[in-house]
Amino acid sequence: MVSNYMQNMMQEASLIRKMFEAGAKLKAQYGPENVFDFSIGNPSVPPVKEFKNALKTVASDSGISHGYMPNAGEYSVRNTVATKASEEQKTPIPAENVVMTCGAAGAINIALKALLNPQDEVIVICPYFMEYKFYIENHQGKMAVVQSSADFDLDIEAIEKAITTKTKAIIINSPNNPTGKVYSEQTLRALGQMLEKQPNPIYVISDEPYRHITYGIVVPALFPLYRNSIIATSFSKDMSIPGERIGWLAVNPQAEKAAEIVNASIIANRILGFTNAPALMQKVVALCLDNKIDSNIYLRKRDLFVKLLSDLGYEVSVPEGAFYLFVKSPIEDDKAFCELLLAQNILAVPGKSFGKIGYFRLAYCCDDDTIKNSKQGFKNAIEKAK
Amino acid sequence: MVSNYMQNMMQEASLIRKMFEAGAKLKAQYGPENVFDFSIGNPSVPPVKEFKNALKTVASDSGISHGYMPNAGEYSVRNTVATKASEEQKTPIPAENVVMTCGAAGAINIALKALLNPQDEVIVICPYFMEYKFYIENHQGKMAVVQSSADFDLDIEAIEKAITTKTKAIIINSPNNPTGKVYSEQTLRALGQMLEKQPNPIYVISDEPYRHITYGIVVPALFPLYRNSIIATSFSKDMSIPGERIGWLAVNPQAEKAAEIVNASIIANRILGFTNAPALMQKVVALCLDNKIDSNIYLRKRDLFVKLLSDLGYEVSVPEGAFYLFVKSPIEDDKAFCELLLAQNILAVPGKSFGKIGYFRLAYCCDDDTIKNSKQGFKNAIEKAK
Repeated sequence: MVSNYMQNMMQEASLIRKMFEAGAKLKAQYGPENVFDFSIGNPSVPPVKEFKNALKTVASDSGISHGYMPNAGEYSVRNTVATKASEEQKTPIPAENVVMTCGAAGAINIALKALLNPQDEVIVICPYFMEYKFYIENHQGKMAVVQSSADFDLDIEAIEKAITTKTKAIIINSPNNPTGKVYSEQTLRALGQMLEKQPNPIYVISDEPYRHITYGIVVPALFPLYRNSIIATSFSKDMSIPGERIGWLAVNPQAEKAAEIVNASIIANRILGFTNAPALMQKVVALCLDNKIDSNIYLRKRDLFVKLLSDLGYEVSVPEGAFYLFVKSPIEDDKAFCELLLAQNILAVPGKSFGKIGYFRLAYCCDDDTIKNSKQGFKNAIEKAK
Repeated sequence: MVSNYMQNMMQEASLIRKMFEAGAKLKAQYGPENVFDFSIGNPSVPPVKEFKNALKTVASDSGISHGYMPNAGEYSVRNTVATKASEEQKTPIPAENVVMTCGAAGAINIALKALLNPQDEVIVICPYFMEYKFYIENHQGKMAVVQSSADFDLDIEAIEKAITTKTKAIIINSPNNPTGKVYSEQTLRALGQMLEKQPNPIYVISDEPYRHITYGIVVPALFPLYRNSIIATSFSKDMSIPGERIGWLAVNPQAEKAAEIVNASIIANRILGFTNAPALMQKVVALCLDNKIDSNIYLRKRDLFVKLLSDLGYEVSVPEGAFYLFVKSPIEDDKAFCELLLAQNILAVPGKSFGKIGYFRLAYCCDDDTIKNSKQGFKNAIEKAK
């Protein structure tokens, strides 16, 4: 007697669950060291010691409150985050424009709840993080898919063509999951200029939890390039704490109706059931905001994995950030190729899950050995595919 | 450019915000000790020492994971909660039927997302917790309001009359916010028997964060009395940690399509953006599940407050649980009376906010002195109202 929507969801979700179940079964059967799980972006790198110290400090503070707080979060935490966000965005952002959230997923959901009327359209760039579709539909919006260019960059012309009178927002994700692409300042400026010409304001929601995981490149500040912009992000990836559900939203002070959007997002935080971001974790991250995971750890894994796959004849573009490889499937049918990989105890996600057939995604936020020891399996799979 | 729905919400919310702002202003002006804030159910009683110890233990455990986990929560935590829930519900509940959530608000939202088709109706009992309306509307449902009986009990006949072919669920809340009523076993059995006769399954969602805050009374187990039942609850009130957003949902194993509802709720946890209940706090509460706040602390406050108000001529029913008094307004217009109280530096919530005109709510989860020192203000207000 579940709803029709969830009935369908459960069928879709059961495909992913089947993969996880297959993985768990393989691990039980062959031992975890003989299964090469590149399926989820769950960092194996532990949180930095400053995080652990901050956690101990907050946990031992007998005077700390675990009570309700303003739905936007502790003011002092918002203020600390606003200072950091102002640097990142090269724009003065007052604490009042920052809302602490239950991760980036919470941040995107409250932004969409604040903005969308039923049937409003939200543009996403393909390949895209598969959850966007559900987040948009949670608030009765419609997802409009625009293909990225051949090198996974934003195709400004294609985006412009997809805009209708119903378009309310665009979600971008840079560094990108699954492609690892970082949109350049030039690209973002072109996007902003094109959007500025539209008759109605179209808000760019920039989902950027991988901002601090880049390889010799700085993610450009979006706020100076386009005023109707919102950052939705989390500490999940750069602090390796995705289970703690802590992130934030910031609305560009120059955005049209900025104060209204902030207020609506705060109320959305309350009425969607988040209420407020977890109290304790707000205080912990505020104490160690500058202490991110060293990107070089992931750089080493990236280079190791790219070389391993290239040597075997896989076609793989080198990611500029995040910790995913989006690899061309040696055969058109990416699902079938992932089955071939599975037969080698390798877990990968088909491109279809990101709306992009003919590719598969590998998460390399795992041990180096998992990458190294997967070589024979990747070799066997590509040979079988030929 | 926020959505029409949120635009309206912001106007409604601004009334509540105005009250809070008025309160903050009064506190700044007269000193917090001269303002009597009975507006929010934010416990002033600190968490028990076992909670603080469990928190320190988990925070110091260097091996603990802050990573992603199954969307339903850590299996071991679900199992511990299931054991406790089985006792409370006098029904064996497997760990698989328990989902860890971001508080009771998260639990209710995932249950509604799992169940509701657009336009499905959810019955709530008036006076009701004002957020229910938003939770139902988040998932495109419609709230149907049924009045409670004169003594704030369930009016089974009235509920039966309100049932239509679209009725999918009923939310009950016992001990009740705002009335403090605890529904008896007899009442719940009668509710179950009436629902059992309906052609379509109607799920009872029992919101019970105050279960362990009662005064010489045990909240009856619902599961043995009606099979299509779901518990949605949290540790916010009985552990005094509402800011930490940790709770759980349990589906009666005897419920029609129980496994489907559990699965849909787990997926809803993911797609609504909660992802999973905060990782660290799951482990903390599992370590101190039996260590609740002593209800006698609130019993003393209740008796103090009831006597104080009765002596002044207020008409107040004695709550059996939770920490609210729902007091008859000496004048019909409860909003006007709350203004009179505000003029005495007393913050109360008008009954209108719970759908019930002619009453006001006082939260007594505050210091004893706040209650004692409010006497003159309550005296002046009732005299002015005459």
